[in-house]
Amino acid sequence: MYQSSESLGKLVSLLSRLPGVGRKTAGRLAFHILKMHEDEAKDLAEAILLVKEKVGSCTVCCNISEVDPCPVCTDDKRDRSVICVVEEASDIVALEKAEDFKPLYHVLGGRLSPLDGIGPDDLNIKSLLARLDDSVAEVIVATNPDVEGEATAMYLNKLIKPFGPKTTRIARGLPVGGDLEYADGVTITRALEGRQEL
Amino acid sequence: MYQSSESLGKLVSLLSRLPGVGRKTAGRLAFHILKMHEDEAKDLAEAILLVKEKVGSCTVCCNISEVDPCPVCTDDKRDRSVICVVEEASDIVALEKAEDFKPLYHVLGGRLSPLDGIGPDDLNIKSLLARLDDSVAEVIVATNPDVEGEATAMYLNKLIKPFGPKTTRIARGLPVGGDLEYADGVTITRALEGRQEL
Repeated sequence: MYQSSESLGKLVSLLSRLPGVGRKTAGRLAFHILKMHEDEAKDLAEAILLVKEKVGSCTVCCNISEVDPCPVCTDDKRDRSVICVVEEASDIVALEKAEDFKPLYHVLGGRLSPLDGIGPDDLNIKSLLARLDDSVAEVIVATNPDVEGEATAMYLNKLIKPFGPKTTRIARGLPVGGDLEYADGVTITRALEGRQEL
Repeated sequence: MYQSSESLGKLVSLLSRLPGVGRKTAGRLAFHILKMHEDEAKDLAEAILLVKEKVGSCTVCCNISEVDPCPVCTDDKRDRSVICVVEEASDIVALEKAEDFKPLYHVLGGRLSPLDGIGPDDLNIKSLLARLDDSVAEVIVATNPDVEGEATAMYLNKLIKPFGPKTTRIARGLPVGGDLEYADGVTITRALEGRQEL
């Protein structure tokens, strides 16, 4: 393939490894970077290095953080009796959009997936169980509502029960603003199972 | 909005300035970079800096290049009697996919667009006219087939004519593999106008 510059070609190939970025998008991004102001490109490169250098993980909740323990774990205004378990740190960003929901979190770092060779020892489960003292009243399992996420939730439920706290699972049903007509059968089944009195 | 780390937030905001990258995609990319191997992130950052440092433009054809004149301009195997005029350096990558097409190029650096305040003096037109000696038999105007691209082509045609070479415009019609049923009226009109004997 024609290539106008070796360093541009290298940038394209590195960018195309990012998720959701194919060769064409990578080319467009690389040409954009080429046209950027020098300072802006420098900022971007430095931000990439800085994020790798500064961001570690919290030894309590395994969330990504620049300090240890992380600001969530040390936040006195949070409900310390509730731990919300998520698969990835990025899920916390989503959950924090909810109103009136200020729990502590615990990041598993993935989900059980025997096909990919990911078992309980590959997830941050031991550190979760270590947190379950008398102050914890509820563990909300907010793994994704797919096969692996459900299996992980069931597995965690069994482990957590002996420690005392109530284990709950986030509701599965129709998304707000959704349309019954376009919902799949499993979602409708779950929405009916999870129906609540008005 | 909740933010788990300041440096991650900065990376997200810088990434979201890239074309076609919204805040959500930027977040996904940033989390991916965070999970990348250290060396890989370093490579990416360095590639961004390197591309800004190494890549300049060819003084002959205004294409991006690491050397001056660029490898295309110095390539003896190319048809030096044909100059293909394009809006952006990225268009050359597209044109080089054509079979049996090895012309010289000239990059305008944009197109005439009075609404955006882009006039003839903002484009590399003078350097194009300076190249039109007796060795050039044809100038192919391959600006984009939209309003501004067509206007730019018409304008260039007028300027080039006195210098002698034939000016041609790339054909507009139905894309190969396309479907008449879904083609817009203007494209069909152009396809009919440009019809050729079998």
